[in-house]
Amino acid sequence: MTVEKNRRILLRSRPVGLPKSSDYEMVEEEVPEPGPGQIVIRNKFISLDPAIRGWMDESEDSYLPPIKLGEAVKAVTVGEVVKTANPAYAEGDLVMGIHGWEDYSVSQGESQSTKIAADTGVSPSLFLGVLGSTGLTAYFGLLDVGRPNAGEVVLVSGAAGAVGSIVGQIAKIKGCKAYGIAGSKKKIRWITEELGFDGAINYKTCGDMTEAIRAMCPDGVDIYFDNVGGEILDAALMNLRERARIVMCGAISTYNVKEPQPGPYNLWQLLVKSARIEGFLIRNYADRFPEGAVQMAEWINQGRIKYKEEIIDGLENAPDAFLKLFTGENEGKLVIRP
Amino acid sequence: MTVEKNRRILLRSRPVGLPKSSDYEMVEEEVPEPGPGQIVIRNKFISLDPAIRGWMDESEDSYLPPIKLGEAVKAVTVGEVVKTANPAYAEGDLVMGIHGWEDYSVSQGESQSTKIAADTGVSPSLFLGVLGSTGLTAYFGLLDVGRPNAGEVVLVSGAAGAVGSIVGQIAKIKGCKAYGIAGSKKKIRWITEELGFDGAINYKTCGDMTEAIRAMCPDGVDIYFDNVGGEILDAALMNLRERARIVMCGAISTYNVKEPQPGPYNLWQLLVKSARIEGFLIRNYADRFPEGAVQMAEWINQGRIKYKEEIIDGLENAPDAFLKLFTGENEGKLVIRP
Repeated sequence: MTVEKNRRILLRSRPVGLPKSSDYEMVEEEVPEPGPGQIVIRNKFISLDPAIRGWMDESEDSYLPPIKLGEAVKAVTVGEVVKTANPAYAEGDLVMGIHGWEDYSVSQGESQSTKIAADTGVSPSLFLGVLGSTGLTAYFGLLDVGRPNAGEVVLVSGAAGAVGSIVGQIAKIKGCKAYGIAGSKKKIRWITEELGFDGAINYKTCGDMTEAIRAMCPDGVDIYFDNVGGEILDAALMNLRERARIVMCGAISTYNVKEPQPGPYNLWQLLVKSARIEGFLIRNYADRFPEGAVQMAEWINQGRIKYKEEIIDGLENAPDAFLKLFTGENEGKLVIRP
Repeated sequence: MTVEKNRRILLRSRPVGLPKSSDYEMVEEEVPEPGPGQIVIRNKFISLDPAIRGWMDESEDSYLPPIKLGEAVKAVTVGEVVKTANPAYAEGDLVMGIHGWEDYSVSQGESQSTKIAADTGVSPSLFLGVLGSTGLTAYFGLLDVGRPNAGEVVLVSGAAGAVGSIVGQIAKIKGCKAYGIAGSKKKIRWITEELGFDGAINYKTCGDMTEAIRAMCPDGVDIYFDNVGGEILDAALMNLRERARIVMCGAISTYNVKEPQPGPYNLWQLLVKSARIEGFLIRNYADRFPEGAVQMAEWINQGRIKYKEEIIDGLENAPDAFLKLFTGENEGKLVIRP
């Protein structure tokens, strides 16, 4: 397909609540030329993520400066270098970075776009999900922080989510027993029947969570991968084995809470079980992403890791598709193929 | 000194509150003979510990079965083997174990009495304190769980206590900066002027604890050795450096609390700082006690570790001395030399 024009979706006004179509404008421009040191990227896959909503606000609370009015909506994309004025990039290189809702993006080069492997044997779109920060959160969180040994018991909350579902599957690959906690029958069926989890609990219907975990994991838990904090963390604490490890991945929700939230009531179990809780941020693993992505791609090619991805064709569908993230209509990683 | 008789202090009645002199009876018996597999120990130092009070109760809540009425009060002692019917022990061996308030104890051998090094160059009484479980709690907790690197910042609560005071001194030996939190001017003077701590805070008068730690350790804390939990833990959490470690040693007090106590409000800092909290129990290090005691004895001989020990002569003074533990009159490790 040859695109002669560059379609772009610009932010025209700052949304109040969920963005409306009048907050955007789609324009067609000439395909840009790179300035010195720049590259031009043909976007092949555009990631839709809740964070984009934050970038649409004026406030500077988030990681990135806000999107300026009249600028293309920012998003992580995977694309191909089609023009280069930067010796570090060649035409045809596959890159990933924060670009935009547009056919072609101009990138500043190294500070904005990272080269990714073209020979993984899987769709490059996966770098936006299972080979990207969500999948690698599972990968490095479990392997580097949790350090599983074959035969150990791994429990994960948010088990049907983008991170949790991968945690359980990597645990199985490493010879562990994998157990999950999720919030619906459908999710539990998926992780136990399709992903190979050894068991799962529906936290909405299981009654006493501590007892439910005990019934499922009568010998206790060696690694609890915590995506949620709160009561489930407390229940997991009561089911630790000696030298257990709790990987603290979630609980980011507490950032937005105005009232300070108490920590787990059962933290003293760390003492009794010589156990630890350890937090981590995936951005500190940025230099090891290639290593993780290569391994994950291999497992995917072997059919040992399954994931959910929903690809929607057509740049013009980005605004509507984006809303699915907030209504829970999407199934798996949401990607636009412009 | 030759003791021809075996003086023994027997428990006659179960105390209500603090034990009274009428709860004990001192008797003189013949020096016992060992049965098959047994040894007879001449007690040289008897440790007075608050746990003994628990052993005087009928209840089986504590680690050990209660002291029977008519039996000698149990205590950890260091003594010399004077008679042996067990090939694993020779006369003159120095041993440590749970024996009694008596000149001579009959021991079941391996299950009760552990041989300790006689060639440490320090008083064998120190095996009841700084070379025993309190000093080694500091040693293994800091070195094995905290894993300090030279140049790092170590903060310890309960800093003038038997564990905390050693933690700070070992931190200094390892090339760290050592900071303490304690509860009186006198304690703060002792740890900073005599033990070499780089700074200390009086938690009773410092005002906002988070700010006080920040002022003392403006670059943050690499290792927080937690002897107390609660608000001080929360304040330490707000002052962590990247990859900080919290050694969870105290907080045993929560065992006795009827109402569940919330954990730290600032636990989410573990996530932001890629930090961990790890608990440990010193009894899991039993097989490494000799290694720790040898190293600690060397540092004591070099004058690099200081400690407080109060030795009281005369078995007959054990009941009165024991009460000091509950009124706070003792200064340092309390030991009876019978």
